[in-house]
Amino acid sequence: MFKLIPQEVKFFEMFVKSAENLLKGARVLKDIANDFSSLAENAAKLERLEHDSDQITHEIMEKLNKTFVTPLDREDIHELTAALDDVMDFIEAATERMVLYKVSVPTPEMKEIAEVILKQAEEINYVMPKLKEIKHSQIIGHCIEINRLENEGDRILREAVAGLFDRKIDPLEVIKWRDIYDYLETATDKCEDIAVTVEGIALKYS
Amino acid sequence: MFKLIPQEVKFFEMFVKSAENLLKGARVLKDIANDFSSLAENAAKLERLEHDSDQITHEIMEKLNKTFVTPLDREDIHELTAALDDVMDFIEAATERMVLYKVSVPTPEMKEIAEVILKQAEEINYVMPKLKEIKHSQIIGHCIEINRLENEGDRILREAVAGLFDRKIDPLEVIKWRDIYDYLETATDKCEDIAVTVEGIALKYS
Amino acid sequence: MFKLIPQEVKFFEMFVKSAENLLKGARVLKDIANDFSSLAENAAKLERLEHDSDQITHEIMEKLNKTFVTPLDREDIHELTAALDDVMDFIEAATERMVLYKVSVPTPEMKEIAEVILKQAEEINYVMPKLKEIKHSQIIGHCIEINRLENEGDRILREAVAGLFDRKIDPLEVIKWRDIYDYLETATDKCEDIAVTVEGIALKYS
Repeated sequence: MFKLIPQEVKFFEMFVKSAENLLKGARVLKDIANDFSSLAENAAKLERLEHDSDQITHEIMEKLNKTFVTPLDREDIHELTAALDDVMDFIEAATERMVLYKVSVPTPEMKEIAEVILKQAEEINYVMPKLKEIKHSQIIGHCIEINRLENEGDRILREAVAGLFDRKIDPLEVIKWRDIYDYLETATDKCEDIAVTVEGIALKYS
Repeated sequence: MFKLIPQEVKFFEMFVKSAENLLKGARVLKDIANDFSSLAENAAKLERLEHDSDQITHEIMEKLNKTFVTPLDREDIHELTAALDDVMDFIEAATERMVLYKVSVPTPEMKEIAEVILKQAEEINYVMPKLKEIKHSQIIGHCIEINRLENEGDRILREAVAGLFDRKIDPLEVIKWRDIYDYLETATDKCEDIAVTVEGIALKYS
Repeated sequence: MFKLIPQEVKFFEMFVKSAENLLKGARVLKDIANDFSSLAENAAKLERLEHDSDQITHEIMEKLNKTFVTPLDREDIHELTAALDDVMDFIEAATERMVLYKVSVPTPEMKEIAEVILKQAEEINYVMPKLKEIKHSQIIGHCIEINRLENEGDRILREAVAGLFDRKIDPLEVIKWRDIYDYLETATDKCEDIAVTVEGIALKYS
């Protein structure tokens, strides 16, 4: 028993750590959207944060493999860990494409979606430290807000793509931005996955 | 016991309701393909049907969370419910893009694929009311047909994309239609998922 | 008991058979990359190999449904079988698009990625016959190498897409090649899935 309790606490601490790292990443994404001249250095910053995320993910998974009695269902731990890491991966992939494809200016919609992702990361950071106590009443509202933000992100990106067509810009630029938008949309989707998993945990244990 | 039996029946009734709603959606898609001037109003109709589908899905999931003993494996109920909802989502997403991207005429292949999706929805509606009795012999043939239709849909859309290239049309139009085709292809894939789940259920319980 | 042992052996034999078939496919892909004039006949060859893969997959799944005690977790058998089949499917899909889209010359990056996929298939073929004995020490190194190759494939294809933009070629050609690259990237991803599943099995049983 004695040995298990610290380990249980550890999982929750590591989720918080992963969420904090994600928040850093979402802030860098917003910095890029606000000042595109900072793209190169901020993309490099995101690459480092993405490595940190991989490291945290690896630690959680290793602990999961070694822990016999887990404080949450193994599957939930797995899903939460993977989704937290995925958000960071997709933010990083989007900015990497901005560098690689040499896009010159951010679209207005890129700024909007960066704002949405930052808000989602903030909500995730409200929720994560409360997961240990699993107070459903304190968690549910934030989960709903993360879902609402995902819907807002969907709408923004849907219109962003339509905007690319309307402006009749170079088809190659359309292809580049659609690619970048895809990664950003998947980042918001993965935030929603986190909310769904957290809500499921809160329902199960409350 | 008394309390469980009506609940069991309820799940099957709700699957039928979801399938019926899907059939309505597939019919509207075919209406659009046949008369593209009706796009705006029919897309609005699909949006409402998609909300109805969300509502039914939500009811099933809520019942699933509250029901201790379910007539089928929880996982099967979950998969079937999600796939039924997904088909509707992707049909609606495809038509929404037609509106948003301002495509002017449907391609011939769009008519063909709308026909395939309608046939799949009809097969799903043959099967769903029979799921309760789980008569494998009555179910299997329809599942095979849904799979065959998915293969046919694949072929149609593969050639549809090649056709876009062959006609050397505006690259922006190519991008738009490929996007729409993607949603329609995923709709047929999700119909196949339904068939696979139903067949799995029939095998398990027969 | 007597009846179960031969069946257990059968699963491992069938994995080996599936991996060998995949290796044949990866070799044909490389033949295409090296001599594009052979595309038509080699694409037809891949279609036949893909059918063989479907057949092997079907046999394993059928055996899985009929076998009460399996030598590995059912889920692992399922995942491994599906991933082996997926790699072949995506190799075949990529070459089918080359034919269908009438691309005239392979890009240099296509040759590189074909080489990566062949190496992954070779590693998979080193590992698969050792799975029966589940010697973790003999398996782990190959799994790491398959992951490394997936990362290398990612890098190649990321730069391949950037290269399409840089060369300012016809946007329709860009769309075609991105499509083909997507299938090839998914093929390398699925090889990584195989490595992850195999490593998980080796960890569990060693």
